[in-house]
Amino acid sequence: MPRLVMKFGGTSVADLDRIANAAKKVKQEVDNGHEVIVIVSAMSGKTNEMVGWVQQTSPLYDAREYDAVVSSGENVTAGLMALTLQEMGIPARSWQGWQVPLKTSSAHGAARIEEIPTDNLDAKFKEGMKVAVVAGFQGIAEDGRITTLGRGGSDTTAVAFAAAFDAVRCDIYTDVDGIYTTDPRIVSNASKLKKISYEEMLELASLGAKVLQTRSVELAMRFKVPLRVLSSFDEDISETAGTLVCEEEEIMENNVVNGVAFVRDEAKMTLVSVADRPGIAAAIFGPLADAGVNVDMIVQNISEEGRTDMTFSCPVDQVLRAENALNGAKESGEINYHGLVSDKNVSKVSVVGIGMRSHVGVAKQMFDTLSREGVNIKVITTSEIKISVLVDRKYLELAVRALHDEFELEHAT
Amino acid sequence: MPRLVMKFGGTSVADLDRIANAAKKVKQEVDNGHEVIVIVSAMSGKTNEMVGWVQQTSPLYDAREYDAVVSSGENVTAGLMALTLQEMGIPARSWQGWQVPLKTSSAHGAARIEEIPTDNLDAKFKEGMKVAVVAGFQGIAEDGRITTLGRGGSDTTAVAFAAAFDAVRCDIYTDVDGIYTTDPRIVSNASKLKKISYEEMLELASLGAKVLQTRSVELAMRFKVPLRVLSSFDEDISETAGTLVCEEEEIMENNVVNGVAFVRDEAKMTLVSVADRPGIAAAIFGPLADAGVNVDMIVQNISEEGRTDMTFSCPVDQVLRAENALNGAKESGEINYHGLVSDKNVSKVSVVGIGMRSHVGVAKQMFDTLSREGVNIKVITTSEIKISVLVDRKYLELAVRALHDEFELEHAT
Repeated sequence: MPRLVMKFGGTSVADLDRIANAAKKVKQEVDNGHEVIVIVSAMSGKTNEMVGWVQQTSPLYDAREYDAVVSSGENVTAGLMALTLQEMGIPARSWQGWQVPLKTSSAHGAARIEEIPTDNLDAKFKEGMKVAVVAGFQGIAEDGRITTLGRGGSDTTAVAFAAAFDAVRCDIYTDVDGIYTTDPRIVSNASKLKKISYEEMLELASLGAKVLQTRSVELAMRFKVPLRVLSSFDEDISETAGTLVCEEEEIMENNVVNGVAFVRDEAKMTLVSVADRPGIAAAIFGPLADAGVNVDMIVQNISEEGRTDMTFSCPVDQVLRAENALNGAKESGEINYHGLVSDKNVSKVSVVGIGMRSHVGVAKQMFDTLSREGVNIKVITTSEIKISVLVDRKYLELAVRALHDEFELEHAT
Repeated sequence: MPRLVMKFGGTSVADLDRIANAAKKVKQEVDNGHEVIVIVSAMSGKTNEMVGWVQQTSPLYDAREYDAVVSSGENVTAGLMALTLQEMGIPARSWQGWQVPLKTSSAHGAARIEEIPTDNLDAKFKEGMKVAVVAGFQGIAEDGRITTLGRGGSDTTAVAFAAAFDAVRCDIYTDVDGIYTTDPRIVSNASKLKKISYEEMLELASLGAKVLQTRSVELAMRFKVPLRVLSSFDEDISETAGTLVCEEEEIMENNVVNGVAFVRDEAKMTLVSVADRPGIAAAIFGPLADAGVNVDMIVQNISEEGRTDMTFSCPVDQVLRAENALNGAKESGEINYHGLVSDKNVSKVSVVGIGMRSHVGVAKQMFDTLSREGVNIKVITTSEIKISVLVDRKYLELAVRALHDEFELEHAT
């Protein structure tokens, strides 16, 4: 019997009515002939409530206790979902992470999935269970303590189950009905993509389209799990609903550009006149990494007379931490620079498209468009399938709209 | 190092402040040189909320899923308590039922404790753990599914841990400061007992003094665990605080009567003119048991001409169920009677005291007192250490006060 994984996020199981609504979709898939593994999040708000309690109790909390507390939200939803399905006449039962077991590393609060033995669920499917409702986001470490995978970890749980159980597809039910060419709140004629490649989705996910957690897309790509994003509030859950994230080869005609992504609150920091020498990059970015600064773009200007300028971007709320780390490294003599300039008023705009690989000129078209609109580009970085620029934050909406128009994304599918 | 079990109920861990307050008491006992096992309930209200969700979702719910859902409340408290203790510098960690493991029968929703292996906790105590915070009320069945012990099961968990780990005492922290000679809301000069025997406590617990769950007292008696009831809102937790439930021998001078207990909402049911024959009692009370009626007192009148009257009491809200069961048994010919009379307006009043064993005349004194006050006695039953009567409900308070005075319980200790 073909197996299907269906994942429901917090807003999709926010109360008993929504759980019932989600269960109806599960029943449809059972009626379609699937054995289903349902992955559930905590009812929306519950995890935050518990995280709040933990932080209030112990600001520098023991992550093992954090995991023991916050994992309980998913257990509640899993049990309620199993009961709802049973009421509909479907043989279902709940599974907590340790019961599966979903084995993880012992990095509490951000554990990595190591193995999902299939014996326990397989045995129950053989006995007639039609739906296994699994508490998402959680697992068990080798020492028997509960772990969690980090926020959004339920997506990753879902993909990992799809891979382990050889599911035909992993459906992520959420509060949006698919992946759009850009944020519809900024560009009203943004269009929904029917299909998108893993690579593009990865760029979009990590660039700020917050529908899918990056880790889950990486995992889906590695194990070639077709991943679908669709709305739990739409009636239609047929094969054509939502957006399918899949291998490039399964997409007949690639658009050159498939999306315009952005990160609003970025900061640009420049180390002016750094004494250039082999190993200088490591000397700069080592302390930043140690301080937990998420460095994104890095640009190094041409070196002149043994000195160079080094520019990088990071989230605005990490600027202070970055400054402290760099000043510390300067004082201890690890690095030497004349000035440190922070610009907290920039945003990152990126165009993403697997078709760029075979189409030249996308970069030129992008820069021309921004220039025509009078948007100054402060930093540029590129990969095989994306081009990112930093611009003043006041131009963010303008830049996104202009690029969306220029690449005719209102007609993308 | 001597071990101590401390149990905190729902009102004692209702929010972070109260958890902190409870943790202070735990710290005191650690400072006194104990290794402590703390048993916690869910924050008050949480279990009811989840039970409500389960019942709404599935009125005839799968008890295995019920257990999976409602056990989560204790897990949250256990983690938060461990974090609170860690913040105070005490090496503490949380344990969920399956991690200990607390092994139970598979009677979900009302499981019985079968075994508590001590290896896991012992190993951690050896490594320096000072406090094990255990989620109460829950365990694990042989098939790996979560079980719960039934409402109030945290008391039973606490006593079972005290027995398994050979604790010097099991302290039950609650919202009253001990066991009283009767309900202080009815008799304002009711006095707190310093000590009470297991046997008396059992009679009081099952007779309506709702401080301790009957099962936990039975277990304490069987394993000779000294059990103390005290308030989590009092500063004093020294040896003399609260009420100690212990073996009779440890109480120097027994009072003849130690308490007046009562159950307000009882019903008296009489089967009039039952055809008497061997096995008639089983034929009557079998169907009642099957219908889930909790029959308490049973009185059979002298049989005349092959017929007899059979009277019993049960909770008021089970009268309809009892009537249906008896009428059914009559229709199917299992039993034969002329009439069924239900009186829903009675209460049960009992005097309890281990000293009765060596003092005659307590029954006479009780009946004289009630007669003097004009209270008519409808049914009488006795055991070695208690005398119970049914009276019209309107006389309940009068009867309790008169008996409390008569036996001079305001001076009891």
